[in-house]
Amino acid sequence: MALTPQLLRALQDIVGPAGLVVSAEGRLTYECDMHTFYKGTPDAVVLPESAAQVAAIVRLCRREHVPIVPRGSGTGLIGGAMAPEGGVMVSMTRMNRIVELDFPNRCATVQPGLINLWLSQATRERGYFFAPDPSSQMVSSIGGNASTNAGGPHCLKYGITVNHVLGLEVVTGAGEFVQLGGKTHERPGYDLTGVMVGAEGTLGLVTGVIVRLTHLPEGVKTILASFSSIEDASEAVSAIIRAGIIPAALEMLDEVVIRAIEEGVGAGYPKGAGAVLLIELDGPIAEIEAQSGPIETICRDAERALLWKGRKEAAGVFGRLTPNWLLQDAVVPRSKLPQIMKEVAAIGARHHLVIANVFHAGDGNLHPLICYDDRAPGELERAKQANEELLAACLALGGSVTGEHGVGLDKRASLPMQFADSDLNFMARLRRVFDPDSIMNPGKLLPSHPACGEGFRPAARPLPAGTWI
Amino acid sequence: MALTPQLLRALQDIVGPAGLVVSAEGRLTYECDMHTFYKGTPDAVVLPESAAQVAAIVRLCRREHVPIVPRGSGTGLIGGAMAPEGGVMVSMTRMNRIVELDFPNRCATVQPGLINLWLSQATRERGYFFAPDPSSQMVSSIGGNASTNAGGPHCLKYGITVNHVLGLEVVTGAGEFVQLGGKTHERPGYDLTGVMVGAEGTLGLVTGVIVRLTHLPEGVKTILASFSSIEDASEAVSAIIRAGIIPAALEMLDEVVIRAIEEGVGAGYPKGAGAVLLIELDGPIAEIEAQSGPIETICRDAERALLWKGRKEAAGVFGRLTPNWLLQDAVVPRSKLPQIMKEVAAIGARHHLVIANVFHAGDGNLHPLICYDDRAPGELERAKQANEELLAACLALGGSVTGEHGVGLDKRASLPMQFADSDLNFMARLRRVFDPDSIMNPGKLLPSHPACGEGFRPAARPLPAGTWI
Repeated sequence: MALTPQLLRALQDIVGPAGLVVSAEGRLTYECDMHTFYKGTPDAVVLPESAAQVAAIVRLCRREHVPIVPRGSGTGLIGGAMAPEGGVMVSMTRMNRIVELDFPNRCATVQPGLINLWLSQATRERGYFFAPDPSSQMVSSIGGNASTNAGGPHCLKYGITVNHVLGLEVVTGAGEFVQLGGKTHERPGYDLTGVMVGAEGTLGLVTGVIVRLTHLPEGVKTILASFSSIEDASEAVSAIIRAGIIPAALEMLDEVVIRAIEEGVGAGYPKGAGAVLLIELDGPIAEIEAQSGPIETICRDAERALLWKGRKEAAGVFGRLTPNWLLQDAVVPRSKLPQIMKEVAAIGARHHLVIANVFHAGDGNLHPLICYDDRAPGELERAKQANEELLAACLALGGSVTGEHGVGLDKRASLPMQFADSDLNFMARLRRVFDPDSIMNPGKLLPSHPACGEGFRPAARPLPAGTWI
Repeated sequence: MALTPQLLRALQDIVGPAGLVVSAEGRLTYECDMHTFYKGTPDAVVLPESAAQVAAIVRLCRREHVPIVPRGSGTGLIGGAMAPEGGVMVSMTRMNRIVELDFPNRCATVQPGLINLWLSQATRERGYFFAPDPSSQMVSSIGGNASTNAGGPHCLKYGITVNHVLGLEVVTGAGEFVQLGGKTHERPGYDLTGVMVGAEGTLGLVTGVIVRLTHLPEGVKTILASFSSIEDASEAVSAIIRAGIIPAALEMLDEVVIRAIEEGVGAGYPKGAGAVLLIELDGPIAEIEAQSGPIETICRDAERALLWKGRKEAAGVFGRLTPNWLLQDAVVPRSKLPQIMKEVAAIGARHHLVIANVFHAGDGNLHPLICYDDRAPGELERAKQANEELLAACLALGGSVTGEHGVGLDKRASLPMQFADSDLNFMARLRRVFDPDSIMNPGKLLPSHPACGEGFRPAARPLPAGTWI
């Protein structure tokens, strides 16, 4: 869709000339997020500097029936922060300030574009940090983390993003300001903070976030445990949790990934092992010592920075494994880990594909890496088929078709595998409460499905402002 | 409203003769919850034994435009589980089973009528407990705890009920089954678990709850600290939190309450003190020892059971203080405790009323007890005025008009003090997604206010089933 000169002028009146990108080369930067299968260039990109500007943009786009695609740093892995149908992309990168650090109440108020790691850097010397640590934390934004409900290795102990968001300021798809949650523990009325966290920009735009600050632990200890098979490592995960120990992180890497990391990075992982677990304990030093005893019977100590370098650069070495890959994200209850690892191996064997594994074992959050070569006839199709079987296997074990990455464009079609029609219909009706004209990130999250009504394309005619839906 | 013989017969067909209460004396039991200001007898009480029966009841009542009032154990303090307009009360007391204990995944699936304490009793020998511990835990139900998002002394460390609910099975006001959340950490789509927790039965009926189980701590230590004034004790609360210590519980009792408890129970509290703090530490024994050092400089050890007996029986000794009382529930950010305690004292002095204090200091959750004698002319009016000023003072400090008890009938009128019209309108629209005909617990939670539309009385005409609202 082409935007009218009047609309572009009105956008520029709101954000100023420096806040509007309309050139083809400028817009190209925004054609996709980190899931490069999906591309779509917005017709314009606006970079607001205040919540008031955001509200003005939404009201304008609503009046003109133009889709809005919110974007943080664009590091998402599910095709969520791109514009499949064009429209106006709202980039939050200029709204990147810390508004308030409130140490007595252990919270911070930040703008949505603030880089995740910056908050921990700004609070470290006072003894605090922001706990959710997606691998992208050096570049991803807290608003984007909230919109995708991002996870990370240390979320096993500290919880995922939703557990650290106390309140949100939101401009809904109707152009209204709504305050959700706040600094105090509990508030009257419906608790909508959790609905907005993980909504992937389909309900509105986050313009402010109140997050919990966490005390830095007194000590940290990282343990590497190696196993002859990934099934044995999976059993160990269950045994550790059963012993009442919740490590800060509990990450699994399989044989294929270990070898690739050792060749690419050299982190000191044992090359002959069938799998390794990276186990991190933190907290009071006395507690770490008490917990590491039972774990160390199967482990040896190692150097922390190097161990994490291997894990965090795993994605960088995938190119050594395979010409093409599909990084899946799914979940099983963690007691089912040994079972799903057998199934993953069986699916790989059945389709003659290497499936590598590096994942958040403590959470039961798998990231099977399906390796294929799209120049080999039929291999892409086999990879897609293996992918479908993988998701179905997770669901059959009581799991979920997405873990920490979200739905976006990529998993939309999988939602009917997990939800009844009545659940989908319910979500679609909820979406209309926030976004009556379906202008917010259309085509994302909810599937094209009869239970979802019109599938959330912009409505043919606008509803009068304030209409009761 | 009188129910037709046809409707009563249809209800009996669903729940059987033993599950239907229609006699006047039988219904009298259900005329109020623990807030005895508000009374209203339901026209019938049904006691379903399965989720399918619950869904059949809702569909029947929806068709006939009869209000539904859900009820757990009836221990609420805000007039939520009573029937101001008659209608059908749905009591969950016969749906009180543990459906599954899943220790490897640290969770339990329970029916809504299960008594809170029973779950901890059933899991203790395996080393687990259910952490939310409202003072009513020996009699209140987990479904009721979830519907009011109940707190409790140990929620400071362990979080409130919403932090322990992983998933819910719900029959909405439209008579549909909806699954919210589940055993795995994260799921695709909108996270509606938090919306249902604390919705006080206004969106639907909870028919199943998946809750988190928590490991029993290795050790527990309870410390009593006495202070010359409540302001000094409030400063100590801030100092403890600032030191990076989150006790399991941190409870405040003022001079008036200490005296009443000592006369009534004899818990060994120091009668001359201006205030005491009850501080409980739990966890690994080494951690407790490390944390108690900084606290003990202002404390003396004491016997745990007796200390808690005093705190938990505080409500029982209020009769010694005053002929009548109003127990308020409000919140301030905990850094504002010293300030609000000064204001509470000033409000009491201004209105010539004793205001006693016993509360969850660590959470900033106040329970001022406004003492009055309704036989003394004008005293009730002064108490009500003091109450209004108290809530306004909490809001002015960035707090909330309700803490752990909820809204119900009692706080409805206060909501417009805390929320903008757009927020109220938003909640009303959300309510209609779940409950299109406004049959669920009408007259509760949302105020009669233009922003809430029709104020959620049963609709004049039913909408056709499946209508898009």
